[in-house]
Amino acid sequence: MRQSLEIRNQHRCFEGAQGFYQHDSSTIGLPMRFSVYQPPHTNHQPNPAIFFLAGLTCTDETFMIKAGAQQYAAKLGLTLVTMDTSPRETGIPGENETWDFGSGAGFYLDATAKPWSKHYLMESYIVHELYEIIINEFSADPNRIGISGHSMGGHGALTLGLRYPEKFRSVSAFAPVSAPIQCPWGQKAFTHYLGDSQEIWRNHDATALIEDGNRIANILIDQGLEDPFLTEQLCPGQLEKVCQNTGQKLTLRYHPGYDHSYYFISTFIAEHLKYHQDTLNASR
Amino acid sequence: MRQSLEIRNQHRCFEGAQGFYQHDSSTIGLPMRFSVYQPPHTNHQPNPAIFFLAGLTCTDETFMIKAGAQQYAAKLGLTLVTMDTSPRETGIPGENETWDFGSGAGFYLDATAKPWSKHYLMESYIVHELYEIIINEFSADPNRIGISGHSMGGHGALTLGLRYPEKFRSVSAFAPVSAPIQCPWGQKAFTHYLGDSQEIWRNHDATALIEDGNRIANILIDQGLEDPFLTEQLCPGQLEKVCQNTGQKLTLRYHPGYDHSYYFISTFIAEHLKYHQDTLNASR
Repeated sequence: MRQSLEIRNQHRCFEGAQGFYQHDSSTIGLPMRFSVYQPPHTNHQPNPAIFFLAGLTCTDETFMIKAGAQQYAAKLGLTLVTMDTSPRETGIPGENETWDFGSGAGFYLDATAKPWSKHYLMESYIVHELYEIIINEFSADPNRIGISGHSMGGHGALTLGLRYPEKFRSVSAFAPVSAPIQCPWGQKAFTHYLGDSQEIWRNHDATALIEDGNRIANILIDQGLEDPFLTEQLCPGQLEKVCQNTGQKLTLRYHPGYDHSYYFISTFIAEHLKYHQDTLNASR
Repeated sequence: MRQSLEIRNQHRCFEGAQGFYQHDSSTIGLPMRFSVYQPPHTNHQPNPAIFFLAGLTCTDETFMIKAGAQQYAAKLGLTLVTMDTSPRETGIPGENETWDFGSGAGFYLDATAKPWSKHYLMESYIVHELYEIIINEFSADPNRIGISGHSMGGHGALTLGLRYPEKFRSVSAFAPVSAPIQCPWGQKAFTHYLGDSQEIWRNHDATALIEDGNRIANILIDQGLEDPFLTEQLCPGQLEKVCQNTGQKLTLRYHPGYDHSYYFISTFIAEHLKYHQDTLNASR
């Protein structure tokens, strides 16, 4: 392992290794944390890997602690990757004032508006810097990397999946912010991170990206019907409509009784990981 | 549900219901929190139930968030029960000063020494008050209730299981404090909660209880060999020795590479729940 990767913690889990890491990110210009679960019996063979992008207020630890995903990754031979949801302690005024913007709310894009554009570059961090680390230091197979996420991270998974289909060969999401241009969370974040140009916003909105012609083989989405953010913030119906109109393949499943929590994610994560494995193996 | 049970949160999880509750405990004399996972398809039939007692610094939420147990409980038709690890905000001076004593460290006993004896009555709370609530309000089958726990909670599961075999028909533990009389955590807690009499201490030490004649059908224990507390605090070898000497049946499994974390617990919780179900069904 490179000297610049600090191992914060490691735990054996389902015979594999759950590690938490920190490094000086050249993209962000600050220390960043990420986490990797490596399945057992890999013998340094390249493994398929799934990047999981967490939601507002979460960290690199949330999914690894709450989703119960490691057992399935162990069985399927998948590497799991999570990262923090924003840069931290940038010194930018206002970064810690609200829970839905700034720290813990990087929205998985490269900010273009000052002062956020100095450090809030989560898209480049994930797609280039962390992506290379996972391939080079954790033996991931560059032809079998998928992306998934929850809520704001579902937005990230869909938009990065649609924009980098050569990098992420399978895409899924839990309760994603499906049309951020049209919801308060997205409007607030995009205004600050990207400025006022709606044309630029469209590059970071899954519904608009599909409307504008981006296509991938399939999208799997699970959504709870008791999710309190469903109508105002998530808007999966907007995404569904544009997929129907454009022919983008989408598997959108609504689940009665389920909410926005990791109790919902843990219930369906096995099916997502199986979907990723099947899709990645079929694309080889 | 009784009016006095406040529902703090409920989440659907693996088609069952994950609930977090608060009530005014007559035993403790203060509000107490507990959590219940109810498997699907119960139709108000009495279910077997497993009480899981958490370790130092934990709350009623820890196991439900981190152990990934609900999926197995759903499949096996088990109700899961957790509770806070101590009374909270008792006003007793010093209760929040150290992480291994007072708040978050009730040690699952009834304190007999002042000032702790006013509120720190976790044994009676679990064995009588909460036990009745689980039977009466959550349809648990009183003939099929098991107990398990981790670390300090493993101590609690072993000692309450050994002392109330008619209430808890199956007993297991993860990395339990097996001989608290002989370790710093136990000595500190027992001195404050119970005073100086070593004879009283023996009622709350699994190794001593077996030495003194208590017997149950079987004990299942899993222990990681990379657990940093193994030698100084947990002492499973003491328990193993007394079980060998007395004929108490014990299944003690050591696991190379595993530590004291919930990554360890999550790896083996499926086997524990299956063990409880088999034991409880065999005892009908």
